[in-house]
Amino acid sequence: MNAQVARQITLEHVDDLARGAALLGTGGGGDPYIGSLMLRQVLQDGCRVELIDVEAVGDDDFMVPFALMGAPTVLVEKIPNGVEMERALQLMEQQTGERAKALMCAEIGGGNALLPLVLGGRLGLPVVDGDGMGRAFPGLHMLTYNVFGIPCAPLTMTDEFGTTAILRSDSAEELERIGRNIVVAMGGSCAICFYPMHGRDARRALVRGTLTLALGLGRTIREARRSSGDPFAQLAAYLRNTSYYKHCRVLFEGKVVDVLRNTVGGYVRGVVMIAGTGSCLGRQISIEYQNEHLVAREGPRVLAIVPDLIAVLDSATAEPITTEGLKYGQRVAVLGISAAPIMRTPESLAIFGPQVFGLDVPFTPIEQLSP
Amino acid sequence: MNAQVARQITLEHVDDLARGAALLGTGGGGDPYIGSLMLRQVLQDGCRVELIDVEAVGDDDFMVPFALMGAPTVLVEKIPNGVEMERALQLMEQQTGERAKALMCAEIGGGNALLPLVLGGRLGLPVVDGDGMGRAFPGLHMLTYNVFGIPCAPLTMTDEFGTTAILRSDSAEELERIGRNIVVAMGGSCAICFYPMHGRDARRALVRGTLTLALGLGRTIREARRSSGDPFAQLAAYLRNTSYYKHCRVLFEGKVVDVLRNTVGGYVRGVVMIAGTGSCLGRQISIEYQNEHLVAREGPRVLAIVPDLIAVLDSATAEPITTEGLKYGQRVAVLGISAAPIMRTPESLAIFGPQVFGLDVPFTPIEQLSP
Repeated sequence: MNAQVARQITLEHVDDLARGAALLGTGGGGDPYIGSLMLRQVLQDGCRVELIDVEAVGDDDFMVPFALMGAPTVLVEKIPNGVEMERALQLMEQQTGERAKALMCAEIGGGNALLPLVLGGRLGLPVVDGDGMGRAFPGLHMLTYNVFGIPCAPLTMTDEFGTTAILRSDSAEELERIGRNIVVAMGGSCAICFYPMHGRDARRALVRGTLTLALGLGRTIREARRSSGDPFAQLAAYLRNTSYYKHCRVLFEGKVVDVLRNTVGGYVRGVVMIAGTGSCLGRQISIEYQNEHLVAREGPRVLAIVPDLIAVLDSATAEPITTEGLKYGQRVAVLGISAAPIMRTPESLAIFGPQVFGLDVPFTPIEQLSP
Repeated sequence: MNAQVARQITLEHVDDLARGAALLGTGGGGDPYIGSLMLRQVLQDGCRVELIDVEAVGDDDFMVPFALMGAPTVLVEKIPNGVEMERALQLMEQQTGERAKALMCAEIGGGNALLPLVLGGRLGLPVVDGDGMGRAFPGLHMLTYNVFGIPCAPLTMTDEFGTTAILRSDSAEELERIGRNIVVAMGGSCAICFYPMHGRDARRALVRGTLTLALGLGRTIREARRSSGDPFAQLAAYLRNTSYYKHCRVLFEGKVVDVLRNTVGGYVRGVVMIAGTGSCLGRQISIEYQNEHLVAREGPRVLAIVPDLIAVLDSATAEPITTEGLKYGQRVAVLGISAAPIMRTPESLAIFGPQVFGLDVPFTPIEQLSP
C-alpha cells in the first residue's frame, strides 16, 4: 500500500471489491450486489472515486464514516435512492459545523464497503482505506472507533422519504438501541453517519488497509477461477502475506442441511447446520449468526469464534454466501480467518467479543484452536 | 377571560387545575398527580407562573408547545427529573434559531396541562391559555395545530439520561410513528417539543381558553363537594356557560365490572365494562379506549364518541379516574361533554375522528344522540 498517493477505483475493481467485501462480511453486512451496481453507475457517470491512505490525511481534517443500517434481509430488497445518503452527510455537517474532507467506511464487510465509495464519488470526497470493524458486525457500537473512545454521536439517520433523525447520547450502546428502533420504523434500513472524527483520531482507531484487503481477496478468487486453481489454498496464501489477517484455513466442507432464520428487532438471527462431505464425511457443524457468523462448532468443540472471521463460500467457485442467501443443499466450504490484532485486544473483545453476543465460550484465536 | 392581562397561577390553583385537566383528559393524558407535585414545587421555589391570552401574543412571537410523550401507565411511575424538559426546549431553540417567547400546551388533558406551566415557571416564560387537542389524544399528529397545517417538525425528544433525538418529516403521522418507537426505546416516556409556531399561527390553531376551563371544572368539583351539592349537575351548569364546551350530561351510572388493559407499542389500549346501578340498574355499557376513552356504547347504541369527551368519575366525589386507574368494583358516573367547535370540523374529524381510531361508526355530536 502506498501512503503517499491516492488510488483511483475504476470499473475493473468493482467485482473484486464486492466479492472481497462479501467474504469479509462473514455472512453479513448486506449483500454487496446493490452496492456494486451503485458504484458501477457512479463510475460510468464519470465520477472520480478515490481511495486514500489514512497517513495522507491531515490531523485536523474532518472525516465522516458512512453506512447503511438495517437487517441484511431488508437491505437486499429496499434499495437506496441515493438522496438519503447525501442527506445523512449534510445533517452531520450541519450538526458539527464542519465540512467533511474525506469519508470513512464503518464496516468493510458486505455492501457497506462500497457505499462510502458511491457517496464519495458523487460528492468528490476521497474514502480512507480502512474501516471500523475489520469485518461486519450487527451493532453500531461494535466499532474500533468506539473501542478507542471516539464518540458515536451525533448519529444522523435518513430514509428514502426524506425523514431524518439526529440522535445524541454519550453511550454508543444506547444509540444502537434507540437507533435500531428507528431503523425498524423507517422500514428496516436507512442511511447513517456517525463517529465524526479528525485525522488524528482516524489514525488511532482505524482497522487499516481493509479496502485494499477486500480488493486483494476478490482478485485472488477471480484469478484462482481463471487458472482453475484451488481458490481456498490461494486465499490462504494471499492472506499469509498481509500484515493483519495472517491465518486462514478451511474449517469444514459440506452441505447445508438446515437453516434457521428470524428477522426480529432489526436483526437477522439464526443457526445453519452443515453436514460434512469429502474429507469431512460423517461429521456435522453448526454456525450461529446474528447478521454475521458468530461461532462455528462441531458438537461442543469451537472451530472459530468472533471476532475472528467465519466465511461460508460456495465450495466450487469460492463465491461468498451471505446469511440471507443460505439455502438447503448448498455445497460450501467454511473458511476461518484471524482478525486484525487491533480487533483482538481486551478492549476490543469487551465491545465485540463472544460474551457481548451471549456466547458461553471465551475468545480463542483461530491459530490456537485445533483444526 | 381577560385578553389584556397575564394571570398568575398560584398554589391555590394547583389542585383545581389538576382535577380539571384529569377530567378533560377523558381517561388519558397521564395522571396529573406528578405534574401537580412538580408545579407546587416550582411555585414554592418562588417561580412566577403566568398564563397569557393568545390575543396578547405578538404576531412574530416564537412559541413552543411542550409535552411528555408516552403511555400513561409509564408516566405515573417514571418521573421526569426536569432536566429533560429544559433540554427539549433548548434543542428546539437551537434547531429553529429562535428563542421562545411563550410556551404552549399540546394537550389540556391530564399531566400535560400542568407541565408547560412547570417548565415556564422554571424558565420565566408565560404559557398561553389553550392547547392543541381540547382534551387528550394518543397521537402527536392529533392536534388542531396539525389540522391547521402547522408543521409538526422538528420534533425534539429527550430522556432522563440526556439522550436526545431530533426528528424531521413533512408528515406528522410519520413523526408519531417513528417517535413512538423512540419513546418505547427511551423506556416508555420522554419530554418533547414540536409544532414550533408564531403568534399569528397560534391564534388560528389554538383550542382557546382550555387552561381556564380546566381551572373552572376543578373549582366546580371542589365547591360542589364543600357545599355537598350534586357535582354532576354543577359541572353541567358550569359548562353551559362556557362558549366552547356547552353540552354535558351524565351518560351512565354504575360499577366497573371488567377492565381489559394492554400496554402495547407505547399505547394503553382496552375496554372497560360498567354495569348499571341506581337509575341504570339492569343495563350495561362498554367504553373502548386508546390512552383516552374513544366511544361509550350500550349494545350497538352509541352514547358518546370521539372527539366529544367521555369522562369516568367517582360517583360520590366526582374525582376523575384515568384509564390506568380503572379497577373492578369502582362506583362511577360517566360524563359526556361536547367538544369545542374547532374540534368537530370535517378537517378535525379527518385527523382525530372515529375513523382514525378504527371505529365503525361516524361522529355524531352528543347533543344529537338520545340520552
